[in-house]
Amino acid sequence: MQEIEVIRIKEDVQLNNPVFIVGLPGVGHVGKLVAEHLVEELNAEKILEIYSQHFPPQVLVDENSETHLVNNEMYVCKTEKHDILALIGDHQSSSTEGHYKLCTLYLDIAREFGVQRIYTLGGFPTGQLTYSEEVLGAVNNPEMIEELKEYGVNFKENEPGGGIVGASGLLLGMSKLEKIDAACLMGLTSGYLVDPKSAQSLLKVICKIFELNIDVGPLEERAKEMEKIVARLKEVEQQQKGMPEMSTVNDEDLRYIG
Amino acid sequence: MQEIEVIRIKEDVQLNNPVFIVGLPGVGHVGKLVAEHLVEELNAEKILEIYSQHFPPQVLVDENSETHLVNNEMYVCKTEKHDILALIGDHQSSSTEGHYKLCTLYLDIAREFGVQRIYTLGGFPTGQLTYSEEVLGAVNNPEMIEELKEYGVNFKENEPGGGIVGASGLLLGMSKLEKIDAACLMGLTSGYLVDPKSAQSLLKVICKIFELNIDVGPLEERAKEMEKIVARLKEVEQQQKGMPEMSTVNDEDLRYIG
Amino acid sequence: MQEIEVIRIKEDVQLNNPVFIVGLPGVGHVGKLVAEHLVEELNAEKILEIYSQHFPPQVLVDENSETHLVNNEMYVCKTEKHDILALIGDHQSSSTEGHYKLCTLYLDIAREFGVQRIYTLGGFPTGQLTYSEEVLGAVNNPEMIEELKEYGVNFKENEPGGGIVGASGLLLGMSKLEKIDAACLMGLTSGYLVDPKSAQSLLKVICKIFELNIDVGPLEERAKEMEKIVARLKEVEQQQKGMPEMSTVNDEDLRYIG
Amino acid sequence: MQEIEVIRIKEDVQLNNPVFIVGLPGVGHVGKLVAEHLVEELNAEKILEIYSQHFPPQVLVDENSETHLVNNEMYVCKTEKHDILALIGDHQSSSTEGHYKLCTLYLDIAREFGVQRIYTLGGFPTGQLTYSEEVLGAVNNPEMIEELKEYGVNFKENEPGGGIVGASGLLLGMSKLEKIDAACLMGLTSGYLVDPKSAQSLLKVICKIFELNIDVGPLEERAKEMEKIVARLKEVEQQQKGMPEMSTVNDEDLRYIG
Repeated sequence: MQEIEVIRIKEDVQLNNPVFIVGLPGVGHVGKLVAEHLVEELNAEKILEIYSQHFPPQVLVDENSETHLVNNEMYVCKTEKHDILALIGDHQSSSTEGHYKLCTLYLDIAREFGVQRIYTLGGFPTGQLTYSEEVLGAVNNPEMIEELKEYGVNFKENEPGGGIVGASGLLLGMSKLEKIDAACLMGLTSGYLVDPKSAQSLLKVICKIFELNIDVGPLEERAKEMEKIVARLKEVEQQQKGMPEMSTVNDEDLRYIG
Repeated sequence: MQEIEVIRIKEDVQLNNPVFIVGLPGVGHVGKLVAEHLVEELNAEKILEIYSQHFPPQVLVDENSETHLVNNEMYVCKTEKHDILALIGDHQSSSTEGHYKLCTLYLDIAREFGVQRIYTLGGFPTGQLTYSEEVLGAVNNPEMIEELKEYGVNFKENEPGGGIVGASGLLLGMSKLEKIDAACLMGLTSGYLVDPKSAQSLLKVICKIFELNIDVGPLEERAKEMEKIVARLKEVEQQQKGMPEMSTVNDEDLRYIG
Repeated sequence: MQEIEVIRIKEDVQLNNPVFIVGLPGVGHVGKLVAEHLVEELNAEKILEIYSQHFPPQVLVDENSETHLVNNEMYVCKTEKHDILALIGDHQSSSTEGHYKLCTLYLDIAREFGVQRIYTLGGFPTGQLTYSEEVLGAVNNPEMIEELKEYGVNFKENEPGGGIVGASGLLLGMSKLEKIDAACLMGLTSGYLVDPKSAQSLLKVICKIFELNIDVGPLEERAKEMEKIVARLKEVEQQQKGMPEMSTVNDEDLRYIG
Repeated sequence: MQEIEVIRIKEDVQLNNPVFIVGLPGVGHVGKLVAEHLVEELNAEKILEIYSQHFPPQVLVDENSETHLVNNEMYVCKTEKHDILALIGDHQSSSTEGHYKLCTLYLDIAREFGVQRIYTLGGFPTGQLTYSEEVLGAVNNPEMIEELKEYGVNFKENEPGGGIVGASGLLLGMSKLEKIDAACLMGLTSGYLVDPKSAQSLLKVICKIFELNIDVGPLEERAKEMEKIVARLKEVEQQQKGMPEMSTVNDEDLRYIG
């Protein structure tokens, strides 16, 4: 396997007025919930899979005991106004350089399909458990702001104060260098839980932008499923912490014997 | 030394009905115990050694005070039904990218020998100290399930919930992309100790699959030896933690002076 | 995007008696405060931007909700005696090898412009909250010491005892191999806070060296701004720590399941 | 600067009966103390310097406030029986792959000079504060054991139990693959302090091997100096830990905002 490997499921894909939407794991899994919901509800077609040494060395196991190598995938959702190229996946990069390399690839593919605008979806952690319907925005071109305000996106000076970390941020920064307009839309969320309510707020904004009519109800159920998986993963992690260290030498506190 | 270096001990190896079995260090050392037992009991022949910058920078010291650079090794075990290509070793990769690169190599070698099926052996941590004879399975092709059930392997929806991490999982994921059937067989184990009982349960399944008649008793002794080594390694680690840090700058919390 | 990418804002830049000044983030942000103040007060012109996979995968968000990919930038400040090539930026490298690679690039660019001397600016942590006006120096060529003493720089045997970590130190070490004179000037600071007072002391030394007349007052305000940003960043970090781990497998304590 | 850069100080070096001795930082700094003492007492000549991206991004500051980029160096010590090629230095590699790459370079250079035997020097941590004169050995060829026993080296079954980590071990492992005899000689030491007494015991063995007559007294003083440096370095580290994190995003617990 190469450092990054793209497997094309469908060749000769042509897109009309393509827009690129990115919903990878992150705060409250808000972006992932929304993008996966779009893919499902719009009967999207998978066009390619991305595998990489920058993802964790792991397979997931499904309800049939079948394993799936962790990856990212791109789908095409046909809508009246736009063909949506949607990026969803199991993980973001495990390493700093991997983030840059994968986002470079995502942008290369987006450009190949003629994408003129990018929306990255995510959650913005408030640290508060009270619910908010707010969707916060950041853009790589201020000319987008007025239009997005009309769809219900809020903009606040210097927010998010800590910047935007990971693919959601990096894609805005990198596409700016190539003069492609991009916005990051963030549902406000506590940051402590998988958050379907925040995802519903964000989905409503997306529906306005793309003039879609999508049932936001199933998001609750999808979030419950995801919450279960996150819980299982945490349980395994806890168990692993109690186990004897099987690997002797730990790269990070390497001291020398002898 | 190259990033990964393969030293062929025996040239022109031809295998009949080859199956690839992988038993590297992991939870309860179950997979390693079983694979090393097979190699010993079946008088396997070593055909190659693998050294890599992705293993810890370490030598082991044997009973004669002789050092051995940590590595992985492949053996051939001749049985009536199949020639078993067995991968055993001291360590898995220290890094994420190393896992991918080493598993790519393992698969390349397996394909070179015409391997049509892969079994990766491991332990599944229950967090419980009560003993279980269960062997859990996951596959990269659902068609294998019925056959494996007949050998006593259990399959459970979405188990293991946290997926399978390391070479045992990665090999299933990667071989699926190349249409090679692979199963991961996991002995249930507490996760806290080297576990010969779980290894015995797993070995019994392997014996059924390959129609072998192997004494499972010596596994107890082998496990005791391994437990001693793990204990020694932990002791050294503890001592190292009390020592003055010899290296000033630690990559991971690098802050800037000056 | 390449591993390191240089975007030239202005071509065909010619510098007179060029000196290279480096003020990147570090202890008390002393060096960054001074260099950014110089760039502002001397109406410096930006000549190039540096992006790299060795910076964090992050964008910053400004007062207009516009994102900016983290980078380093070089400016030219025209003064009577020298043209100052100034390097400022958001971050130093996230990795050890990135430090070496980025400093190699900085030196290549400095040499391209004919730079004959380098000053790296930083803070020296005292661990004391009492204020000191002292500016400590270290050089890669002892012949510079007498001259710098006249500008008010102190030199102490074996100080800083822990050496100088990051770009401020590395640039001295690497430029020595190429016979370019370089000094690191460090304002003494507690090490616990962004420190405009220490920056004022350091700026006074710089003004003597370059025969400049710059108002040091605005540094207080600039420091307050920077303190706010640092506080916001820390807040976000705290929130993140309370969040459920979204990514299952953590590279650093990778153990093997299965 | 390249990933690893070798600067030859002296060209056309020819060695008689060359033996390679390695004394890098490690447990109790025993190996470093002995090798540096040899270099000093035998008026050794420096023949080359090694710089690398795998060392920390740091300069050291000497008594004249002059900076020195951290490196490793090779010297030639002329003795009646052998020319000793000695490797000493400030640091070992910061990364796993760096250990392998640097040791590959060390071996390449040793082979270039016709080295037939290698001694790596180190400390073996007992965790006990009681003093021991013992010197423990490990070899990559059992034929060396009888000879080394005559020089006073002890050999114990499976000791050190945790193997040998870092350059001292790796060089034995890697030179074995190239059929060069190598031994690791370890002075027993508590592991908590720089240990001149253990270094004296080890030096006595070295003197027997090479039929040298060297004063072991100055080692006490050298160790005191080294202890001071280690203390200063630790102090700086402590101060750094109290400081505000200047760099926002930490590679190792990267979670995604947005």
